[in-house]
Amino acid sequence: MKRVLLTGAAGTLGTAMRKALAGWADELLLSDLIPVDDVNAGESFVACDLGDLDSVIELVRGCDGIIHLGGQSVEGTFDSILNGNLKGTYHIYEAARQMGVKRVFFASSNHVVGFHSREERLDAKSPMRPDSLYGVSKGFGELMAQYYFDKFGVESALVRIGSCLPKPIDRRMLSTWLSEGDMADLIKKVFMVNRLGCTVIYGASNNPWSWWDNRHANFVGWQPKESSATFEQEVLANDPLLDDDNPLLLFQGGVFATAGHFEDK
Amino acid sequence: MKRVLLTGAAGTLGTAMRKALAGWADELLLSDLIPVDDVNAGESFVACDLGDLDSVIELVRGCDGIIHLGGQSVEGTFDSILNGNLKGTYHIYEAARQMGVKRVFFASSNHVVGFHSREERLDAKSPMRPDSLYGVSKGFGELMAQYYFDKFGVESALVRIGSCLPKPIDRRMLSTWLSEGDMADLIKKVFMVNRLGCTVIYGASNNPWSWWDNRHANFVGWQPKESSATFEQEVLANDPLLDDDNPLLLFQGGVFATAGHFEDK
Amino acid sequence: MKRVLLTGAAGTLGTAMRKALAGWADELLLSDLIPVDDVNAGESFVACDLGDLDSVIELVRGCDGIIHLGGQSVEGTFDSILNGNLKGTYHIYEAARQMGVKRVFFASSNHVVGFHSREERLDAKSPMRPDSLYGVSKGFGELMAQYYFDKFGVESALVRIGSCLPKPIDRRMLSTWLSEGDMADLIKKVFMVNRLGCTVIYGASNNPWSWWDNRHANFVGWQPKESSATFEQEVLANDPLLDDDNPLLLFQGGVFATAGHFEDK
Amino acid sequence: MKRVLLTGAAGTLGTAMRKALAGWADELLLSDLIPVDDVNAGESFVACDLGDLDSVIELVRGCDGIIHLGGQSVEGTFDSILNGNLKGTYHIYEAARQMGVKRVFFASSNHVVGFHSREERLDAKSPMRPDSLYGVSKGFGELMAQYYFDKFGVESALVRIGSCLPKPIDRRMLSTWLSEGDMADLIKKVFMVNRLGCTVIYGASNNPWSWWDNRHANFVGWQPKESSATFEQEVLANDPLLDDDNPLLLFQGGVFATAGHFEDK
Amino acid sequence: MKRVLLTGAAGTLGTAMRKALAGWADELLLSDLIPVDDVNAGESFVACDLGDLDSVIELVRGCDGIIHLGGQSVEGTFDSILNGNLKGTYHIYEAARQMGVKRVFFASSNHVVGFHSREERLDAKSPMRPDSLYGVSKGFGELMAQYYFDKFGVESALVRIGSCLPKPIDRRMLSTWLSEGDMADLIKKVFMVNRLGCTVIYGASNNPWSWWDNRHANFVGWQPKESSATFEQEVLANDPLLDDDNPLLLFQGGVFATAGHFEDK
Amino acid sequence: MKRVLLTGAAGTLGTAMRKALAGWADELLLSDLIPVDDVNAGESFVACDLGDLDSVIELVRGCDGIIHLGGQSVEGTFDSILNGNLKGTYHIYEAARQMGVKRVFFASSNHVVGFHSREERLDAKSPMRPDSLYGVSKGFGELMAQYYFDKFGVESALVRIGSCLPKPIDRRMLSTWLSEGDMADLIKKVFMVNRLGCTVIYGASNNPWSWWDNRHANFVGWQPKESSATFEQEVLANDPLLDDDNPLLLFQGGVFATAGHFEDK
Repeated sequence: MKRVLLTGAAGTLGTAMRKALAGWADELLLSDLIPVDDVNAGESFVACDLGDLDSVIELVRGCDGIIHLGGQSVEGTFDSILNGNLKGTYHIYEAARQMGVKRVFFASSNHVVGFHSREERLDAKSPMRPDSLYGVSKGFGELMAQYYFDKFGVESALVRIGSCLPKPIDRRMLSTWLSEGDMADLIKKVFMVNRLGCTVIYGASNNPWSWWDNRHANFVGWQPKESSATFEQEVLANDPLLDDDNPLLLFQGGVFATAGHFEDK
Repeated sequence: MKRVLLTGAAGTLGTAMRKALAGWADELLLSDLIPVDDVNAGESFVACDLGDLDSVIELVRGCDGIIHLGGQSVEGTFDSILNGNLKGTYHIYEAARQMGVKRVFFASSNHVVGFHSREERLDAKSPMRPDSLYGVSKGFGELMAQYYFDKFGVESALVRIGSCLPKPIDRRMLSTWLSEGDMADLIKKVFMVNRLGCTVIYGASNNPWSWWDNRHANFVGWQPKESSATFEQEVLANDPLLDDDNPLLLFQGGVFATAGHFEDK
Repeated sequence: MKRVLLTGAAGTLGTAMRKALAGWADELLLSDLIPVDDVNAGESFVACDLGDLDSVIELVRGCDGIIHLGGQSVEGTFDSILNGNLKGTYHIYEAARQMGVKRVFFASSNHVVGFHSREERLDAKSPMRPDSLYGVSKGFGELMAQYYFDKFGVESALVRIGSCLPKPIDRRMLSTWLSEGDMADLIKKVFMVNRLGCTVIYGASNNPWSWWDNRHANFVGWQPKESSATFEQEVLANDPLLDDDNPLLLFQGGVFATAGHFEDK
Repeated sequence: MKRVLLTGAAGTLGTAMRKALAGWADELLLSDLIPVDDVNAGESFVACDLGDLDSVIELVRGCDGIIHLGGQSVEGTFDSILNGNLKGTYHIYEAARQMGVKRVFFASSNHVVGFHSREERLDAKSPMRPDSLYGVSKGFGELMAQYYFDKFGVESALVRIGSCLPKPIDRRMLSTWLSEGDMADLIKKVFMVNRLGCTVIYGASNNPWSWWDNRHANFVGWQPKESSATFEQEVLANDPLLDDDNPLLLFQGGVFATAGHFEDK
Repeated sequence: MKRVLLTGAAGTLGTAMRKALAGWADELLLSDLIPVDDVNAGESFVACDLGDLDSVIELVRGCDGIIHLGGQSVEGTFDSILNGNLKGTYHIYEAARQMGVKRVFFASSNHVVGFHSREERLDAKSPMRPDSLYGVSKGFGELMAQYYFDKFGVESALVRIGSCLPKPIDRRMLSTWLSEGDMADLIKKVFMVNRLGCTVIYGASNNPWSWWDNRHANFVGWQPKESSATFEQEVLANDPLLDDDNPLLLFQGGVFATAGHFEDK
Repeated sequence: MKRVLLTGAAGTLGTAMRKALAGWADELLLSDLIPVDDVNAGESFVACDLGDLDSVIELVRGCDGIIHLGGQSVEGTFDSILNGNLKGTYHIYEAARQMGVKRVFFASSNHVVGFHSREERLDAKSPMRPDSLYGVSKGFGELMAQYYFDKFGVESALVRIGSCLPKPIDRRMLSTWLSEGDMADLIKKVFMVNRLGCTVIYGASNNPWSWWDNRHANFVGWQPKESSATFEQEVLANDPLLDDDNPLLLFQGGVFATAGHFEDK
């Protein structure tokens, strides 16, 4: 890869990926609303509001690929989601089309399917059941990606990220944890495979308790190497077992599915 | 039904439904950006911009049900779609939640699945493949409806309307035609059934060439009575057969799927 | 048919079928715990406790086919179900095997699948989810029938009867009603078809609101002729609409699914 | 249609279709190994051995469409099948490609799926299980058609014909009968639909006992009008019921599935 | 776990599990009809006839969980199965409900699906096809468990145990073997997972020849560690290859599927 | 195994398998049109034209099993395919039937499904979509095998071989590579398993990028040990990345799917 755009570069996930991807591309073009101070060799930074199409077009110009982590990444007001995730994702795809970028890694979320029960095994064909306005907006992003693929040939990985953290810190993450190393490997595979199409991939490490089946994305060649089992004892000791009928245990989305409407609070 | 809100009342479809539903509810509350002049007995009119949440809440107050036909109904600029369909549909559902309205008839569109090929048989579980920004926005509306059902219990019929016109006027409509009478029957069934859930229904009459299978919505009890076959000879005479490999014939969405980006024009 | 056994002949359903099947077989051998007084020409009666294997063997001797309506037909104590439905159904199949009877019409029940939601479309491959001890016992009967087919070649129609009454009398029966005439036709088809196998059939008339799909049993050639739609206005007038979130509306089994344990009462 | 080739024109099925299609096309070009004597207005005849590619190319030149009924139509020696059905079908498709014919009605056969049991409901996605060398050769024809569609865009209807006769004459045909009128309607629909693709269609009338589900071909718009039920009493009277475990009843192919190897006889 | 009931504690499987689970729970309450002599620290023993509801209620009082291995574990007379498996399983679940026990490990059996062919891949959604009265009774137990989950919230693992022995001793067990260690691990996982639901799990080790797919139970986190491949050479040497058409090879249930009715012997 | 026939013994694949299977059978009977010079101990050679039935019958006489690699193994003229693959495969199966050979390893090809897209995950139930006349002929062989199994009980492994070479040499082979060792293991498993049926197996090693899912053949017990990942760096360095919309990347068959008709060249 010559020049790859990384949006959301100042966020937690963006920061972790910068480190993990060091040296992978000739140039990693970082972008965020918030400045990134410690720009390294092989990186550059351009501040950009994803809500402004013209700025996004300028940002995307000359890139080979886009890793789109930017936008709102948790539940928020409809306005915050509208700007970051509805407008923002449209702008990324429209800019990709205009600038001829062929491939996008889109950070979708497990909250697109958060209202499925924990006893269900999901795959790429499972219906979307968002658990939050945030989840709805990520579903919108997946539909936008599908549209730009079907009509304009822009390829996407729609990565329904579980919990990307240094290690799992509660019982739910025994199922949903995605190690930073596995996520970085996935990014590399997504840009290496000959043909990507528009492909849903569940972003979880090789966890024994996983709810998700990636067989339809097997052709991408990603094989996560880490497992939440490594941290099982630690998690069990620190996170007490809830009662079986606690609503928090019913749905894959966890607290997202049980929380009421954001603006009621 | 006591009081039912009909959005988009000034549009073609809204106008046809006003006529077909005359006398069905105690009060049909009409709403649109554009005034409706000929308000009949049993009807009332309130102008409302769906892009303004407070206005929508006031509009919805005191209704038993909502027939949501409003918003942008063909391809348009992203801004027009953003206001009418993204904000607008969110506002309808958020108002329903706040005002305790239990059931919504949501006019979705076949353009939510317009990139499926014409040889495919679709049902409620087929993946969405929107053929336009308009189609993406209707898919967003379906996700919003699913979210409000799963979290807050607001029930919806997600009606993927084909071509609701007095009669089919081209070959594609032999598959997609929905008679106005069948649509009005569907509205009545949707508000009559004991339990609706959040249910996808393809809005087409009993056409021999239909691409869509409504078996998952059979419990609603809707059985369309009219058929495009009645108009077959007239349509065949007036609409010449295209060449087999004309792109217009490949996809269910027809010209929506083959048109480029709206703003390029 | 020469000689066909009808168990449960003194019950409501048995009585209706006696009338509807008059003249169909050379001899209709009626049986029940309770005597049948008005034995007609072409009928004979033998009292029998299905809980006693030797009596059942004698009953079955010389029959060409069995219509098994006997046993407990609503929720009851485990003991009543044990005797009538667990022992009783085993005895019918074991007697069929020993006496060389080739085909059984087994009156199973929709309560075998009563914990499916009303928005689900069921077919012969849907998993069993009984809503009562009665439903569990009918599921046991279906498994017993499958076993006797796979191992000994005794064929069965496993008829998951909805609500077999002269007419539908509440809103749920708009979905579940089975007219007596349609049921009698089904019995005839089951004994006419060349090869029956062990086949699940949902026993409902041609109702617009039906939850059940009989396509896997299409080969039997049964096409119900009556429809609950005939009685729609009458039912709607007499049975008030419940609130959407009334638990009675959630499950197909209706009150069977919401009632607690029988013996608690 | 201007000029349509009908192969196998001297056979029983070809003769029936000539009559049923009279006046449909400007010219119906008849062909067979055996001469057709009674060539009518609107028809012409050219003798042709389907086993000779050059002759087939000349035959196909200038046609708009092909109705391919020719070749071996019952079980036979491998050599007879090789010439008529393996070479013959290849030659028809290769000629269509070279001469630019866009659409073929291919008379496949239910014997392509004859080893499925009679209790199974088949659709276009059911695996092939041929019951004879003849059935294998028709499966080969379907694969050839799929290949010419995927690579060269030649569209086909793969019509798995049941029993096309003036009326059903045995119990099996209560399931498999295809009236001549329904078959002629199907031919017309196949050449009328805007886009055909490469589509499996089961060729049976609207029979209550049918084993086959044509929902994936619904877009073609064919709705058979006749039913074997019309002849039920006559068939039942003339064709005695076989014992349940007679091998003839096990498989859809009937005697084709139970007969041994043709050349052993 | 504080106090866990283990029924069938005097049987082979019960004895093996006592050893494998030593120290896992504060108290393992052993029960059987036959006394257990060697009660260890951390264990207690209460004799109980599962056919007596009151005794079972007393047994279950104060337990956190139930491992139900008791009852008839091979084919037998209907009476023996009636008492141990029909009444017995009902009593276990009814006692769990009354005493507030939330979770049951139910030892079901592969003989619930024993009439599927060996070339079929089964998962949790495969239909039951019992190969024996014993298999029917285990299917009854699964339905009872489903009923108690749907109505009363008692969770269950329905473990279709293959062949739980120290090592595989014939060719069939290359597919069905479950090591004692893997079974004990499964018990622990079943009681550890946050939410269990009512979940079918095939009880087999990580055998290359396995017929069963546990993906729907993946969320339980069980990953069997042993494999029948370890014993492949020994098994092949000691168990001669049968002829391909030997009925013993047709069905997964092996000799259970080919044996006639128990009481004929 | 006592005596096993290996057809196509002089070809590349045949030569590799001779080496890999040395010592496995008492006698490996080699056959080809072209002589094999270096016949080793435990091998014998008989020249045979597969297009001649009598010769094939003599060849097969006295064998326990057949490994059928012979015939045309790449695209060719229809005549070459007709002789080697259509006649040839028929002759192998007819000879097996006449000579009582119970089991055949049939070298089918991934080109039977070569027109599926690379983003699709295929399994044994995926429809055939051949990418060449060669692919059609292999599909014909699979149908012939199915027919001989259903009617005469001859069992087959239908092995859709990917790319069996010492190592993968282009990017496509990262998905399709089958190591020679894994193929030899598969042959051994096919002849070792108690019951084989007629089973589709995709012939690929344990490659991360594989398009194929062998779960339906799991019962055969084959677990490939090698992986294309071993050669990933070497392949990536030597085979440049094609443009995303290069037709060569669209279909699994690669150049077979994009090449025109063989005889046009």
